Amino acid sequence: MKRIRLGIVGLGRAFSLMLPTFLADARVQLAAACDPRETARSQFEADFDAPAFHDVEALARRADIDAVYIASPHQFHAAHTRIAASHGKHVLVEKPMALSLAECDDMIAACREANVHLIVGHCHSFDTPYLRARELIASGAFGDVKMIQALNYTDYLYRPRRPEELKTEEGGGAVFSQAAHQVDIVRLLAGSRVTRVRAAVGNWDPARPTEGAYAATLWFENGAFATLAYNGYGHFDSDEWTGWIGEMGQTRSADEYGVARRKLAKVASREEEARLKAAGTYGGNAYTPAANVPDARRHQHFGPLIVSCERGDLRPMPDGVVVYGDERRERIELDAPKVPRAEVIDELMAAVHGDTAPLHDGVWARGTLEICLAMLRSSAEQRDVLIGGETSITKEC
Amino acid sequence: MKRIRLGIVGLGRAFSLMLPTFLADARVQLAAACDPRETARSQFEADFDAPAFHDVEALARRADIDAVYIASPHQFHAAHTRIAASHGKHVLVEKPMALSLAECDDMIAACREANVHLIVGHCHSFDTPYLRARELIASGAFGDVKMIQALNYTDYLYRPRRPEELKTEEGGGAVFSQAAHQVDIVRLLAGSRVTRVRAAVGNWDPARPTEGAYAATLWFENGAFATLAYNGYGHFDSDEWTGWIGEMGQTRSADEYGVARRKLAKVASREEEARLKAAGTYGGNAYTPAANVPDARRHQHFGPLIVSCERGDLRPMPDGVVVYGDERRERIELDAPKVPRAEVIDELMAAVHGDTAPLHDGVWARGTLEICLAMLRSSAEQRDVLIGGETSITKEC
Ligand SMILES: NC(=O)c1ccc[n+]([C@@H]2O[C@H](COP(=O)([O-])OP(=O)(O)OC[C@H]3O[C@@H](n4cnc5c(N)ncnc54)[C@H](O)[C@@H]3O)[C@@H](O)[C@H]2O)c1
Ligand SMILES: NC(=O)c1ccc[n+]([C@@H]2O[C@H](COP(=O)([O-])OP(=O)(O)OC[C@H]3O[C@@H](n4cnc5c(N)ncnc54)[C@H](O)[C@@H]3O)[C@@H](O)[C@H]2O)c1
Repeated sequence: MKRIRLGIVGLGRAFSLMLPTFLADARVQLAAACDPRETARSQFEADFDAPAFHDVEALARRADIDAVYIASPHQFHAAHTRIAASHGKHVLVEKPMALSLAECDDMIAACREANVHLIVGHCHSFDTPYLRARELIASGAFGDVKMIQALNYTDYLYRPRRPEELKTEEGGGAVFSQAAHQVDIVRLLAGSRVTRVRAAVGNWDPARPTEGAYAATLWFENGAFATLAYNGYGHFDSDEWTGWIGEMGQTRSADEYGVARRKLAKVASREEEARLKAAGTYGGNAYTPAANVPDARRHQHFGPLIVSCERGDLRPMPDGVVVYGDERRERIELDAPKVPRAEVIDELMAAVHGDTAPLHDGVWARGTLEICLAMLRSSAEQRDVLIGGETSITKEC
Repeated sequence: MKRIRLGIVGLGRAFSLMLPTFLADARVQLAAACDPRETARSQFEADFDAPAFHDVEALARRADIDAVYIASPHQFHAAHTRIAASHGKHVLVEKPMALSLAECDDMIAACREANVHLIVGHCHSFDTPYLRARELIASGAFGDVKMIQALNYTDYLYRPRRPEELKTEEGGGAVFSQAAHQVDIVRLLAGSRVTRVRAAVGNWDPARPTEGAYAATLWFENGAFATLAYNGYGHFDSDEWTGWIGEMGQTRSADEYGVARRKLAKVASREEEARLKAAGTYGGNAYTPAANVPDARRHQHFGPLIVSCERGDLRPMPDGVVVYGDERRERIELDAPKVPRAEVIDELMAAVHGDTAPLHDGVWARGTLEICLAMLRSSAEQRDVLIGGETSITKEC
């Protein structure tokens, strides 16, 4: 079996969420890490008998790693990608790819020059139900995609955050962090290039002055349109419409109402909040490892979504794709995931060892960031923003 | 008890849907009717011991009616309103109010000159759960409205139709017929004037070449925005998200999938389809009166809807309003309706006998039509359409 020796850049929440994958997938070996947090480094060294550095340079220099997983804060993605590529490491970088299209271009160029692969993820567009729906659409059985509706109501804004996560100009807010998932999924399903974007953003809690909500319409070259709605203000929870299966595929209880807001209410300052966030992630004193993998019987998801094609609607769900055809409704069952987010490792392995071009490459992910930035601009300037002028790299998706 | 002697203009489907109300509400006396369909007229005369005419003029001339309920096809609403007003009758006219703003202006002027009330309905914005949500918002307990999401996935396009109902230029399609409900509800809840509209319409079944779907964003003067999505192509059914309670408050079965499409598949021509529609309404040979009123334990609704305010989300449901507050979720129970759509009669009685200005008056309903027309224009011209230039009558809502 081919393996991949992975270096981790940033041992925070994103890493904590990927750890069940890394632990359960025999193809991955955690070979090294870096993080400025001392507690995280020492836990990593103890858990994996592998070195953990303060600095990304020291990690990237290691000869015994094949690829890095960059899960540092958004604002470091570009610089860390450049460093990794300069040492010939393949790059798996978290969403959002970066904060600007210039940074994306720089990352794409750096990886091309170094002849390494660049994959952006985990992103929920890797989730099997969406990929399966995409295959069903591609089969042609339902005709062209015409309309997509994607919704997500969560408590996003009230989870503990670093200060910059609450400042839009530094990449904070739901458009950078959450539309990165939703836009990516919708693009994948539409199977066509976005040509224009119209959006409205919501930013209405003065204590957390960044986007907590948005609504957007995307138009595609093939004539389809998609509406995306996201609300992270912690009130209605759309997991109610996904059978109380949560984003991570976990079983939730309708009774755990208002937990995030209650916890946050005890926090006195931005600094304390950042410490609370860190404490809950790897190496922190309130860190609890994710539940055992065999319990994860459902796929992950990013909220209720309906794709309307000419001859049927498709609804990706954590355990299947519901097909609402002209004549009947049926459920296409999906095998329970053995390893959560194994799709990310599949794509990484196929690129690194099979030299198969990844779906979620830099050009693809740049396209998603371009739309997220267009959403912010559309809302601010009260107009449609056209996508794909001369300055934009276009690519069939 | 004050009563109202009502003359009915058009004994078709809309009348069939209002009939349980008229029968159960002791304040209403069905005093006369008109319809070109002979079978409907003779059934009316037999059922109510009251005259039924071929012609609206003959009905309007009657001294023994106080008001008319105009439930003829859209294209006759303006002319029939003018005739009724000219004979001093109050007017309750079905949605959509008319086909153009000029017609609306004409109807408003005719009723003002004749000093009669003009009410537009039934419309689902009369439904108690929305009115109750509006009161909760007005109480100020949740702060300002910020975002509204309204959805409805139905089999609208595959119910039997008259030919003009499938031609947009004659008032056919989901924007004229269905947005008339959804826009009205959203305006009521936002409590502010719509300033701009951006929409995309879907028209993808060549056999039924009118809008079967749409998505729209509305912006309000108070800073709120609303997204509306409607899909009438008979695939996914959003009553799944309303506990399988249907539009009329009835209990539905998840298993009655694809019924509308299957029935329609047996129809050979547009003429046969129009006959099928007529046969299923009052006086037709396939007409079955609506279920007994005491069975209607839930309020009517127009699809899943979430109003997000600063400090809570409100979700109107057939049996209550769910309040998702900062601290807890609670359900405000609503009394079961004794008479379905009694709210329409309440408003009519209050206007005619109490001289209370109706909420759903001509100016209000014109505003809804203006937005529906703007949706069509926005989609065709690919741009925001501004609402409320000099030519538009403005009114605080
Ligand atoms: N795909 C997902 O499900 C998901 C979930 C959460 C976060 N993310 C993404 O992961 C990234 C990190 O977010 P997070 O929520 O994990 O934040 P976090 O603060 O929990 O984790 C970031 C980690 O990076 C470390 N770090 C900071 N500066 C560093 C540097 N210069 N070099 C190396 N490490 C450094 C921090 O100490 C921390 O441990 C973001 O881009 C975010 O969008 C993705
Ligand atoms: N609020 C609701 O729930 C609801 C439901 C259905 C229809 N509607 C509205 O009601 C109106 C009628 O639609 P429908 O579906 O009932 O159509 P329909 O065809 O079932 O009924 C129309 C009736 O009007 C009669 N008619 C035709 N020309 C007439 C004339 N000149 N004078 C008098 N009667 C005439 C027809 O014979 C028929 O009986 C439309 O504007 C529609 O939007 C509202």
